[in-house]
Amino acid sequence: MSKASEREDYVSGDGQVGIVRERTFRHEDYFEMENGSLAEFQLRYETYGDLNKAGTNAILICHALTGDHHVAGVYSKDDHQPGWWNHVVGPGKAIDTNEFFVVCSNCLGACKGSTGPASENPATPGKAYGMLFPDLTIKDMVRAQKSLLDFLGVASLHSVVGGSMGGMQALQWIVEFPSFVKNALIIAATARHNAQTIAFNEVGRRSICGDRDWKSGEYLDGEGPREGLAVARMMAHITYLSDEGMEEKFGREIGVSKEKNFEFSVESYLDYQGNKFVDRFDANTYLKLTKALDRFDLVGEKGLDDSLKEVSARVLVVAFTSDWLYTPAQNKLIVEALHRLGKEGSYLEIDHKHGHDSFLIKSKAFLRSVRVFLNGIDDEEKEEQNADRFRQVENRYEVKKEADFKVIDNWVQPSESVLDLGCGRGILLEYLRDTKQVRGLGVDYDGGKVTSSIARGVAVYQEDIRRALGNLGDQSFDWVIFSRMIDELPQPGSVLLEALRVGKRVALSFVNHGYWRNRLHFLGKGMKIKNDVYPDHWEKSSLMNHFSISEFESFCRKHRSGSNAFEVGRKIYHQGDWVKTCSLWPNLRAGLAIYELSRK
Amino acid sequence: MSKASEREDYVSGDGQVGIVRERTFRHEDYFEMENGSLAEFQLRYETYGDLNKAGTNAILICHALTGDHHVAGVYSKDDHQPGWWNHVVGPGKAIDTNEFFVVCSNCLGACKGSTGPASENPATPGKAYGMLFPDLTIKDMVRAQKSLLDFLGVASLHSVVGGSMGGMQALQWIVEFPSFVKNALIIAATARHNAQTIAFNEVGRRSICGDRDWKSGEYLDGEGPREGLAVARMMAHITYLSDEGMEEKFGREIGVSKEKNFEFSVESYLDYQGNKFVDRFDANTYLKLTKALDRFDLVGEKGLDDSLKEVSARVLVVAFTSDWLYTPAQNKLIVEALHRLGKEGSYLEIDHKHGHDSFLIKSKAFLRSVRVFLNGIDDEEKEEQNADRFRQVENRYEVKKEADFKVIDNWVQPSESVLDLGCGRGILLEYLRDTKQVRGLGVDYDGGKVTSSIARGVAVYQEDIRRALGNLGDQSFDWVIFSRMIDELPQPGSVLLEALRVGKRVALSFVNHGYWRNRLHFLGKGMKIKNDVYPDHWEKSSLMNHFSISEFESFCRKHRSGSNAFEVGRKIYHQGDWVKTCSLWPNLRAGLAIYELSRK
Repeated sequence: MSKASEREDYVSGDGQVGIVRERTFRHEDYFEMENGSLAEFQLRYETYGDLNKAGTNAILICHALTGDHHVAGVYSKDDHQPGWWNHVVGPGKAIDTNEFFVVCSNCLGACKGSTGPASENPATPGKAYGMLFPDLTIKDMVRAQKSLLDFLGVASLHSVVGGSMGGMQALQWIVEFPSFVKNALIIAATARHNAQTIAFNEVGRRSICGDRDWKSGEYLDGEGPREGLAVARMMAHITYLSDEGMEEKFGREIGVSKEKNFEFSVESYLDYQGNKFVDRFDANTYLKLTKALDRFDLVGEKGLDDSLKEVSARVLVVAFTSDWLYTPAQNKLIVEALHRLGKEGSYLEIDHKHGHDSFLIKSKAFLRSVRVFLNGIDDEEKEEQNADRFRQVENRYEVKKEADFKVIDNWVQPSESVLDLGCGRGILLEYLRDTKQVRGLGVDYDGGKVTSSIARGVAVYQEDIRRALGNLGDQSFDWVIFSRMIDELPQPGSVLLEALRVGKRVALSFVNHGYWRNRLHFLGKGMKIKNDVYPDHWEKSSLMNHFSISEFESFCRKHRSGSNAFEVGRKIYHQGDWVKTCSLWPNLRAGLAIYELSRK
Repeated sequence: MSKASEREDYVSGDGQVGIVRERTFRHEDYFEMENGSLAEFQLRYETYGDLNKAGTNAILICHALTGDHHVAGVYSKDDHQPGWWNHVVGPGKAIDTNEFFVVCSNCLGACKGSTGPASENPATPGKAYGMLFPDLTIKDMVRAQKSLLDFLGVASLHSVVGGSMGGMQALQWIVEFPSFVKNALIIAATARHNAQTIAFNEVGRRSICGDRDWKSGEYLDGEGPREGLAVARMMAHITYLSDEGMEEKFGREIGVSKEKNFEFSVESYLDYQGNKFVDRFDANTYLKLTKALDRFDLVGEKGLDDSLKEVSARVLVVAFTSDWLYTPAQNKLIVEALHRLGKEGSYLEIDHKHGHDSFLIKSKAFLRSVRVFLNGIDDEEKEEQNADRFRQVENRYEVKKEADFKVIDNWVQPSESVLDLGCGRGILLEYLRDTKQVRGLGVDYDGGKVTSSIARGVAVYQEDIRRALGNLGDQSFDWVIFSRMIDELPQPGSVLLEALRVGKRVALSFVNHGYWRNRLHFLGKGMKIKNDVYPDHWEKSSLMNHFSISEFESFCRKHRSGSNAFEVGRKIYHQGDWVKTCSLWPNLRAGLAIYELSRK
């Protein structure tokens, strides 16, 4: 098969937006910025798909530091370089242009057709702004984008989506225009730069400004600090990749450009990246944009909670395990603030080895997360979940048959709030939301299950239960639910006490290890019983911490008084068949126990 | 209290080497290098302590990329800047100058008094070598150091010690002069640079060479590419720190040097570091030394095992959790190669937040590791171990009282090799070595216990048991020992089969969960028994995977044939008192079981 026939057909192939064209929006009025103003500005942009009559199906995509507005499609039949997110955006794709009107503009202050430092300064005809361009901010970029959306007739954004600097814009969007945005997908971002990221940017800036050709920013068009900018880009490029990803791609392979004295492939690759960048990017723009990134700070003196207090969008933050620029830890802080504020935020951490740039790379898990966040459970997701040998999504109300779900359903009252620890695929929370308008938050550690929860529209935090609880305020949920998972936790007593701090009530269900069959089996055989509840022989068992009703009640008695005192409310025991209830000798007869607990 | 009175007395204070002086060694002969030669060279060096008559108490310290020979002490009464490892080296310190003759030289190719690119080239009087200096290697540095040690009368090295580039030299030392070195302490190093590290170095070099003042290396003394070198240093400096360390030190604190347009403290800090470096370091030297680092490769085409096959030194590799330049994973590879070769290597991972530079920072855990590696169990270490509520070190032979240790001691024959999984403080391996010349390797995950093992002179790998086993060759140990720890492992069956691949025999001891008291207690109360073996109530329990003799024997029966077949040899059951043995109804009567297993 020839290479040509393998080549993707970007013009008329399946899922392609095809040939697209750039447009220019001119804002011919004075534009006030955070640190200055512009007499006027323009934004270069592209759109894909059609805006509906109500103007409510728009998705705004925000690009990263050195990205641009060319998200998808090609400019001509002979153009074989489609936009930077062509695999994400198109008819039937994760961001489906059959459904949505997709907009992306080159951001204010950038150099791909929008007004920025490289644009002519109307005050000095024939000469660029250069360093006289105002010290712009992420907020300025977002406000300029709003003008464009107004011009396009967008009444409200279905979603704002962005990675890296684009993610910071998406975050600023939901802060600045809270009622305008329904959903925000924030990818590999941060609420503010930490010292290491500032440091990398500063070295890049020093490299540019230390190059004599920078001339305090007064270089002519086509000239400028090529060496300094190349070094800045090369360094930044390393921070976009990961140790593992680079090692796999280059290792210690010897490069080919012997004439330039490169020994290793990675050297010539970086050299190429640096040189290519110099041809397509303006140095002053790089200085201004990196400063905008460094200055971005939604934490500030008052804290992130204060900045996010008006947010009403449904938020999903996606981070990548190998991203060491905007680390998972930094991304989590955004969602944790939303959770403290009782807002709807999900966090998903995708296991990907390509570092910060993972969001630009085609990967199944990432595309699935984008798709289900925007579309919920579509046909593709149904298949995904069935393939996971999960019960038919159509039969989701079958869950009521599950003994403890039924009890919890009975206990939880309409419009209460529920924190479900170990929420799995979010089935209980979805059901409680649909039947009782419950505000729910799930916590689970499994990325696949978390994605399923997101598909159900359930807010979910992919995190360890202890950390998730530690983040939440006292009595901030009506219910905290442990449904048959507490025997998977080491030192569960402290977790339970912490749950009683966070929840007004705790609903705890567990398998009673003291059930008579278990005891008799152990007495007779000196072995653990093996059945549906204890499915594995010891050699294949996970580590567990099984316990019985008696053991649990002994724990409860210890906490009848004292600083962590709690009381037991309702308790329901199901017999070994998990159907009929029992009350006599529960530690002997019950297979499953469900307790209601609350602080004294 | 005034600052002056708080100031450490570096001249005559406790543990200080006091006033020291630099010396110069001249090698006046032709010196063949890997990529060229020198007509002659000199090394600037310092020594502390006295060489013994036999010339066998020398410790060579190797410095890092931009370090020098001034390890400890001060040059005068008014000098308040002691050497870079003053807290490590001195009378009574971790590297004790009362015991050892300590030597450090500025390495060949560096610019602090040793011959390097900034030195006068005898071929062109009045002019420095510059880029005409040979492309030196780590091996060249080590060979030059050997000349110095010969000159000083050192018959053999008690130890070679180095961090970062110094660690690479220490590694090269035991490869190049295997019989000359008794011990090697390799800190935060690597057997070769990976792509990311090469990339960072390459950006630094590009920054230097892109500065017009570099002039292809032909700059005059005192001139040179100041901007380019400053940028290279600033960037490298970030890689020496950690995200967490920088965040703690600087965060987003606003800097003071307003006139230079710094916003954040971290910017002015880096600026200061860059400028200071330019005054003390030569650009061509930086180019040559970073290339030497990038070229260093003990893996090569034949693999690390081939490079290390002649090593006879006792090796300790120390890595730091937050080091992302030479990561723990890279450091481990060195020790794993030694283990595959059946050589004595230990690995310790210290939890430290200051990144790669952690080895330069005073920390208790690091100083303890250096001290015990060089001195074994001294008074300070005895106290440390007792403070840990560990049994008196004097009574170490008391361990024989422990039931399974006694059996294992009986089974293991003189001069056999033993892999102890979950070795704790190394007591069994020390005992077997002292009484039977057993070659031992321990594996444990706890850093404190690993340090205790090192203090006993026991080789130990701080790593997960699965990974440690996976690294080792088929039948490479006579014995693999699991002493009462297998119930802490999830899915233990696969680990056991892997141990049977690595060991000719496996000695497995475990607590019999089927013991009659456990059964009766569970039957009657429906609760786990609580005693010395099961010390915690469920709410404070760790996750475990208890099992009984019957369960274990059922596993054994399943593997009587097939690809993973093994057979049970000797088996010994101890009654509930763990003293008397029993053979009738062991699953009912035995408290402890010990099995000998081997592959069929």
